[in-house]
Amino acid sequence: MLPDSLLHLIELLARLPGVGEKTAQRFALHLVAERSGTAQALADALGQLGTRVKSCERCGNIAEVDAQGRALCVVCRDHRRDSALLCIVAKVQDLLAIDRSGAMRGRYFVLGRLLSPLDGVGPDELPLERLFRRLSEDGVREVIVATPPSVDGEATALLLARELTTRGVVVSRIASGVPHGGDLEFADQITLGRAIEGRRALDSR
Amino acid sequence: MLPDSLLHLIELLARLPGVGEKTAQRFALHLVAERSGTAQALADALGQLGTRVKSCERCGNIAEVDAQGRALCVVCRDHRRDSALLCIVAKVQDLLAIDRSGAMRGRYFVLGRLLSPLDGVGPDELPLERLFRRLSEDGVREVIVATPPSVDGEATALLLARELTTRGVVVSRIASGVPHGGDLEFADQITLGRAIEGRRALDSR
Repeated sequence: MLPDSLLHLIELLARLPGVGEKTAQRFALHLVAERSGTAQALADALGQLGTRVKSCERCGNIAEVDAQGRALCVVCRDHRRDSALLCIVAKVQDLLAIDRSGAMRGRYFVLGRLLSPLDGVGPDELPLERLFRRLSEDGVREVIVATPPSVDGEATALLLARELTTRGVVVSRIASGVPHGGDLEFADQITLGRAIEGRRALDSR
Repeated sequence: MLPDSLLHLIELLARLPGVGEKTAQRFALHLVAERSGTAQALADALGQLGTRVKSCERCGNIAEVDAQGRALCVVCRDHRRDSALLCIVAKVQDLLAIDRSGAMRGRYFVLGRLLSPLDGVGPDELPLERLFRRLSEDGVREVIVATPPSVDGEATALLLARELTTRGVVVSRIASGVPHGGDLEFADQITLGRAIEGRRALDSR
């Protein structure tokens, strides 16, 4: 029923995360029907994406390409950041979320993926060589492993802890427990178990 | 934290129906990170959209632009369809859904909008002149009003019924009631009321 060029567009839109064919069709029909030129504006913005935005060559964060064709993100360009403190995250979204919290004044390293035996992702698929080079170049003394508290995230954290402690850096893991504002009644067992295990002494002085 | 060109892309993606800023950011970061060229393929497909796909000049359905620059959809090009039977729908998605059912062998007319006093959409905003021209050109004898069973859809159906019956065409409205496979226990009062009102004699011959 739909023209081939529209079916092709729907197929491409369905590659976006969390978008199925039904939603992709809704997006495509919306773009055909609306008249304020969003389709063309999106085409232009996407066409320029590859030349203007790249992964930061040092940490993997999103970075704008400069006049020399180099891509260094705002964190890596910021000289007030503490280079001796490195936070390892799974993906860019996690980096943005942590940085918004304002609690991290060091630098970042984006792994891009997690250990996942079921999906065939072993230690060789992680950018460990690049990470070790970064450690020595920056003189990193402390690493915070901020991979997510999932099975794959924990496995990756264990691997990193093993590899990094032998290299003489202090390694810590972000705390896992009941989230701020969370209701204990509705917290799952694993979260509550971690909240108890990770309990901290209350200092009432 | 994010480069301007990426923020611009996120803003454009957030114009898609049902997409908020958070989802748009997820789409944009995915497009930057993935390496199979989806961003460029999407840019090409969207850039060609305006020249290759338009609204059908007769019915408003999606149509591929032909070599002469004309846009006639597959329904309007299909000579086996009954031109004397016209189904009026609110939007292209509804046309596609009805045609998939296989129950409609006539042609369609897409209104593009519904009467909506609250949003300031009155009868003058509906393409009634174009509809009346279509009726006389095609020699339409029967019209099925398939606007949705919502307040705006019903108001539009009433307006259409009034306008069309004075022009000597038989006007009907699609049935409203409990959907196939639906559970009566969970049906809302209005739907059940309509199911009772619209009851049909069972012919057990």
